[in-house]
Amino acid sequence: MSEFDQYDTQAIVEMDKAHHLHPWQFFDLFRHNGALPIVKGDNCHIYDTDGRKYFDAVGGLWCNNIGLGRKDMADAIAEQAYKMSYASAFVDLTNVPAAELAAKLAQLAPAPLNHVFFTCGGSTAVDTAFRLIHYFQNCRGKHDKKHIISRKNSYHGTTYAAMSIGGKPGDHPPEFNFISDIIHHISYPNYYRCAEEGMSEEEFVDCLVQEFEDKIEELGGADKVAAFFAEPIMGAGGVIVPPEGYLKRMHAVCKKNDILFVSDEVVTGFGRLGHWFASEDEFGIVPDMITSAKGLTSGYMPLGALLFSDEIWEVLNAEGSGRCFPHGFTYSGHPVACAAALKNIEIMEQEKLLENVNEVGPYFEEQLKTLEDLSIVGQVRGRKFMVCVEYVADKQTRELFPEELDIGKRISNHADKLGLICRSIVHLNVMSPPLTMTRADVDFIVDTLRKSIELTVEELRSEGYFAG
Amino acid sequence: MSEFDQYDTQAIVEMDKAHHLHPWQFFDLFRHNGALPIVKGDNCHIYDTDGRKYFDAVGGLWCNNIGLGRKDMADAIAEQAYKMSYASAFVDLTNVPAAELAAKLAQLAPAPLNHVFFTCGGSTAVDTAFRLIHYFQNCRGKHDKKHIISRKNSYHGTTYAAMSIGGKPGDHPPEFNFISDIIHHISYPNYYRCAEEGMSEEEFVDCLVQEFEDKIEELGGADKVAAFFAEPIMGAGGVIVPPEGYLKRMHAVCKKNDILFVSDEVVTGFGRLGHWFASEDEFGIVPDMITSAKGLTSGYMPLGALLFSDEIWEVLNAEGSGRCFPHGFTYSGHPVACAAALKNIEIMEQEKLLENVNEVGPYFEEQLKTLEDLSIVGQVRGRKFMVCVEYVADKQTRELFPEELDIGKRISNHADKLGLICRSIVHLNVMSPPLTMTRADVDFIVDTLRKSIELTVEELRSEGYFAG
Repeated sequence: MSEFDQYDTQAIVEMDKAHHLHPWQFFDLFRHNGALPIVKGDNCHIYDTDGRKYFDAVGGLWCNNIGLGRKDMADAIAEQAYKMSYASAFVDLTNVPAAELAAKLAQLAPAPLNHVFFTCGGSTAVDTAFRLIHYFQNCRGKHDKKHIISRKNSYHGTTYAAMSIGGKPGDHPPEFNFISDIIHHISYPNYYRCAEEGMSEEEFVDCLVQEFEDKIEELGGADKVAAFFAEPIMGAGGVIVPPEGYLKRMHAVCKKNDILFVSDEVVTGFGRLGHWFASEDEFGIVPDMITSAKGLTSGYMPLGALLFSDEIWEVLNAEGSGRCFPHGFTYSGHPVACAAALKNIEIMEQEKLLENVNEVGPYFEEQLKTLEDLSIVGQVRGRKFMVCVEYVADKQTRELFPEELDIGKRISNHADKLGLICRSIVHLNVMSPPLTMTRADVDFIVDTLRKSIELTVEELRSEGYFAG
Repeated sequence: MSEFDQYDTQAIVEMDKAHHLHPWQFFDLFRHNGALPIVKGDNCHIYDTDGRKYFDAVGGLWCNNIGLGRKDMADAIAEQAYKMSYASAFVDLTNVPAAELAAKLAQLAPAPLNHVFFTCGGSTAVDTAFRLIHYFQNCRGKHDKKHIISRKNSYHGTTYAAMSIGGKPGDHPPEFNFISDIIHHISYPNYYRCAEEGMSEEEFVDCLVQEFEDKIEELGGADKVAAFFAEPIMGAGGVIVPPEGYLKRMHAVCKKNDILFVSDEVVTGFGRLGHWFASEDEFGIVPDMITSAKGLTSGYMPLGALLFSDEIWEVLNAEGSGRCFPHGFTYSGHPVACAAALKNIEIMEQEKLLENVNEVGPYFEEQLKTLEDLSIVGQVRGRKFMVCVEYVADKQTRELFPEELDIGKRISNHADKLGLICRSIVHLNVMSPPLTMTRADVDFIVDTLRKSIELTVEELRSEGYFAG
């Protein structure tokens, strides 16, 4: 008798189909296939209700950093849930884990970012950033500094405001409405796809910086633009590592124009790039705000945080203003979530997981790069534990497969069957494995992905997709 | 040696002050006083770091329904965190607790509300409702049905969209920006404050219904108005129990005009009014959407849910539409949060907590009413485990104390010292105790609140506030 015998997979799938609307659900597909029920996790592996085991190279959803099924985390969570499962952090109440975590985050973040507002995840951290930007600019009398600039193909979360800041075309279908009067999108730094032919990386960056400056001008100049949002490496937009110098130069434009730089580190923070935060340590910029979530608790508990600078704090906290800050979530500073984050940080420190990322990361990049010899692999890109494979119908022209072919999904379906979960986003497979990943795990991922790509190519051939 | 000796309260307060921005923080007060650190919870009681014990009549923040410090909940949470701490519910993955909870909620909710979208709390459930309303109306080709009507003084959460739907003047200070083109606020059903002199409750309801119909007309009629948001009993807006018939008649106007009725049950759901949901069982209406959070997990884990009707689902799920639903949180369907909600529901069922609310609730209302003999108590109102005391400077004219006197806070400060936490909102004290509250607890609350009010009256007298 196996531990999985207790699950009636078909019944669970039907129950889920009947009552559970999923994020990014494709209605026509879901109506027939439903969803695969996951029931157990162990470090990098997950198990479905039939007991099938998968290496989860996606790390949940860019969030499983320390590994699943950790007894020490479960114990820390249980201890806090028993001792003090909830305490309001409204107005003039606080709780010990929230106070300790705020101080710890201030210590881990770039020097001037000493202030923390807790939320329930990345979307609410971004939504809070959006609101705090208004608050800050209004407090200092800059009532016309309202416009927000972000990038095409960026992802910043799912609330109405966060989705409007994001710029993925697929996330902006005509069925949804968005804020369009004060949020604007400029080009994203995808050298592989967006640079004109013959353009050097440096020239490409010149163009992007010029476009940013032109956009500021077009919106009425520095007095009208409040903030710029950027993921240091774009995540869901296809793991876009910016060309050398891009972030520094965009940051300099912000400084010159008194525009807040918001670094969305929901994915890049907490070790994915080998640092607590990537903005300064990987890219040399000190933003005014950093949004954090996911790896902050390794997904064990929902938690988000917005970190912001002393400079912003001084404006908010001006003596004698008589101001209140009417914003916050019931679960802001949730003691169990904060205790989970503290334990997560402790584990990362004790087990030297940042060091592991810096050690295994380059090997992962290097081994994955070997897939570029395959006929449909256009580019392997990314950094350390945040990588992506882009598929093309033609390597010369970089022409994509028709979207309805869903090439990424075809490949990830094969990978599923071979025991590997790698997320598909249209013509991409995106991976963000747990920070505990070893070199042997890398070999398994690369081998399995190679097989899955080869199987897909064969399949396409047999369907007559490729001539010859 | 006490268990509290390990805490250096002053150090915790200073650390918190230096790094933790709180919801609804009053900067000038906070700079000097900081926040009270809470460290332990046991059923209805909480303890600060100096070991002082308080009866928490606020139930955290309307969320502690089954009581704090439950070993069975901590164990259920730990078990799930160990087994499967995170699983993505995106696209075509699911997990067992999420599927089971979706089915359970569909069973507990009014009959047609069979579909669930999971979020991270109440704000994100409301934000999701806002986005789903657009999606639904656009899917069925009603592209001009965009306007949202809600009520003045309502509270619907804190994201940019949720705060814009809310209508509390104190939450809309000039430092923040709001959506104003498609969100509109009509009067709230406060008979005590808002009815004209001599007006019967029935006449008051007539006026409110007329105002709603006029607003729809003013916005261009039924084809322009998408949805109406209402808390069955307004919470943070001052525990406003609507006059008899109000909700039914507002609901009828919605039906007549093909306007979605969104019932915000973040506070009223999960037992606070003696039912799983109050909309139908307490007020006789079946809304199109219900938002839920707080009591859903009793605050042990951050979790929210948006429930919606078969009618909406049929439009979303139309065969062959080729549609996707690009909306969702990393923590949508979080397995630990869903497992906590399932355990919470099980405990409420096994310990007959709804029955306790229906049994002790009327006693609470009745005993609290006795405070109306005090000179500054204008009205005691509410229902079952959701109540409020409103203070007035003059009982005849119902004139309020000057806002800067912060009367509610003065009284709750005295109550704090006497071991009772009751939340102040300007001229109110608001209470939402755990559903485990006994008659003896009620006696303690009412006695202590009486003493606190009396002490405050004496204090005001000694300050020369009252003549004579």
